[in-house]
Amino acid sequence: MRVLLLLLGLLSMVPAGAQMFSLSDMYGTINSPNFPEPYPKETKVSWNISVPDGFQIRLYFQHFDLEPSYLCEYDYVKVVADGEQLAVFCGREDSDTERVPGEQVIISPRSSLNLFFRSDFSNEERFLGFESHYSTVDVDECRDTKDEDLACDHFCHNYIGGYYCSCRYGYLLHSDNRTCGVECRDFVFTERSGVLSSSNFPNPYPKSSDCHFRIELEDGFLLTLEFEDTFDIEDHPDVSCPYDFVKIQAGPKEYGPFCGNQSPGRIQTASNKVHIFFHSDNSGENIGWRLSYTSSGGEYMRKCFRQVIIVSPYAWSVYDLQHGSHLSTSNVITQQ
Amino acid sequence: MRVLLLLLGLLSMVPAGAQMFSLSDMYGTINSPNFPEPYPKETKVSWNISVPDGFQIRLYFQHFDLEPSYLCEYDYVKVVADGEQLAVFCGREDSDTERVPGEQVIISPRSSLNLFFRSDFSNEERFLGFESHYSTVDVDECRDTKDEDLACDHFCHNYIGGYYCSCRYGYLLHSDNRTCGVECRDFVFTERSGVLSSSNFPNPYPKSSDCHFRIELEDGFLLTLEFEDTFDIEDHPDVSCPYDFVKIQAGPKEYGPFCGNQSPGRIQTASNKVHIFFHSDNSGENIGWRLSYTSSGGEYMRKCFRQVIIVSPYAWSVYDLQHGSHLSTSNVITQQ
Repeated sequence: MRVLLLLLGLLSMVPAGAQMFSLSDMYGTINSPNFPEPYPKETKVSWNISVPDGFQIRLYFQHFDLEPSYLCEYDYVKVVADGEQLAVFCGREDSDTERVPGEQVIISPRSSLNLFFRSDFSNEERFLGFESHYSTVDVDECRDTKDEDLACDHFCHNYIGGYYCSCRYGYLLHSDNRTCGVECRDFVFTERSGVLSSSNFPNPYPKSSDCHFRIELEDGFLLTLEFEDTFDIEDHPDVSCPYDFVKIQAGPKEYGPFCGNQSPGRIQTASNKVHIFFHSDNSGENIGWRLSYTSSGGEYMRKCFRQVIIVSPYAWSVYDLQHGSHLSTSNVITQQ
Repeated sequence: MRVLLLLLGLLSMVPAGAQMFSLSDMYGTINSPNFPEPYPKETKVSWNISVPDGFQIRLYFQHFDLEPSYLCEYDYVKVVADGEQLAVFCGREDSDTERVPGEQVIISPRSSLNLFFRSDFSNEERFLGFESHYSTVDVDECRDTKDEDLACDHFCHNYIGGYYCSCRYGYLLHSDNRTCGVECRDFVFTERSGVLSSSNFPNPYPKSSDCHFRIELEDGFLLTLEFEDTFDIEDHPDVSCPYDFVKIQAGPKEYGPFCGNQSPGRIQTASNKVHIFFHSDNSGENIGWRLSYTSSGGEYMRKCFRQVIIVSPYAWSVYDLQHGSHLSTSNVITQQ
């Protein structure tokens, strides 16, 4: 719809019966009809310059000699881009310095530019018209980002006609070719207690990443997670954690998704195995989370039954429960 | 021969048994072998980047981690262009700030650049190598002229990958696509006296032009040319007027070629028809010449016989010789 409106807008600027030229070369010269001979009266010409994306168009006038008129209502040159009028020129270079282009250089906002020339029914004098030149200008996407987001998450490499991104050592370029994620799918924790966090905490966590942490203790232990108060995950005021989130699975039970600035605090699970999933999307600069975990139950068993003495009628053996190793055996139990 | 020497020079820089890559894309990434894993020992790799004329090559390093050594005698990266060494790098980014490239950006002087990587037989530590990026840079020929001469005589229009020239109103672009000449082949002077000069006198005359002035008076006149003292035509200390010159042909007689700063002064021809040829080449900023001409003989006739009275037995008529018109006639001569 918007394209249609734009086209209609453009067409309304092309006077009926106008000559129209389409230019797609990377540079060129645009002259008024008959230049350097005087231009004819009652003439309408339009030139539509269109170059590949990644380029802008630079236009300037070398000679300019049109019939002068108030607000250029008689003869004129109009420069238009994306339906917006960038300039209207008329007059003579040597006398009129207000409406002639002079040294002015016009840069198109995007990769197309339209030039309209019109002469009215009468020219009291002979005017020579204009000679203009255009060429493409490379857009430095690494420097000229109009959006809030940078063109690249880490490093941006401009080249003529485009750009590409690369990542710091240890990161991987996401398939969006813009953000840098981390490989974080196989973090396994088997200690009875520990600390885990989003990458780089308390610096912003990587974008476009799916991390998976596993805490796996022996049967009988019960894991407790304690998120620190510093908690910062990209959120949304209305929708629940649509961008980045932490989710926890402890046996059949799920906790979360968590996001925003409110720490989930302490989570007492009833499981010895906990999966922590952390998803980040391709934007945002949030610092993430950190948690410490402890285990109970198994802890009690370990303290009380660290060593189990198995007594048979004839001998005893001592086993270390923590490491599952056999510590010592008496050959024969001395009868008391 | 020069190209051969250059090739030999380049080849002598490629160690025997080296891997060699030719790159002709307009941008790209060059990594040390196995990057981001440590590079192997005893390795020699060269990359030859070559892009079209009208472009330079911009090279910089994103990561750099090579074995440090005194003057980079062990492992190194060398950057070479046109047989000249532009840089040698080695060392570790975080500790060695002297030999690592850091933020340095290398621009090739022309459209090719060579990168050489070499690791020696032993690496005490594991070094990750380097990641570098290159892209083409448009040469702005209108601004970056290295020669004395400007790229264009009048107006220069740069575009990505090249440039072209155009001329001021009234001039024509010469077939050398650089200089602006004038159309000056049909200047005919028929007045008894006059002044003629090189174009723009006393400003520099146009380049690449062949002008032909003719002074043509009626039979009986004798033309005298008087060059002004201000006379400046491009010359040569040893060769006679090889670049620009004035030559005069008066009947069977030739005068000149004239050039330099010595005015030819007065030339009394024995002819009523004189051709003046003025040739300029594609360089030089000389102001040219001016001459005034007068005529004699015919001048005397004009004064004495401006009006011829033809008297018949019955009437008289007066004719103007200058314009060939019949002035008046008496109907009948009164008999005295």
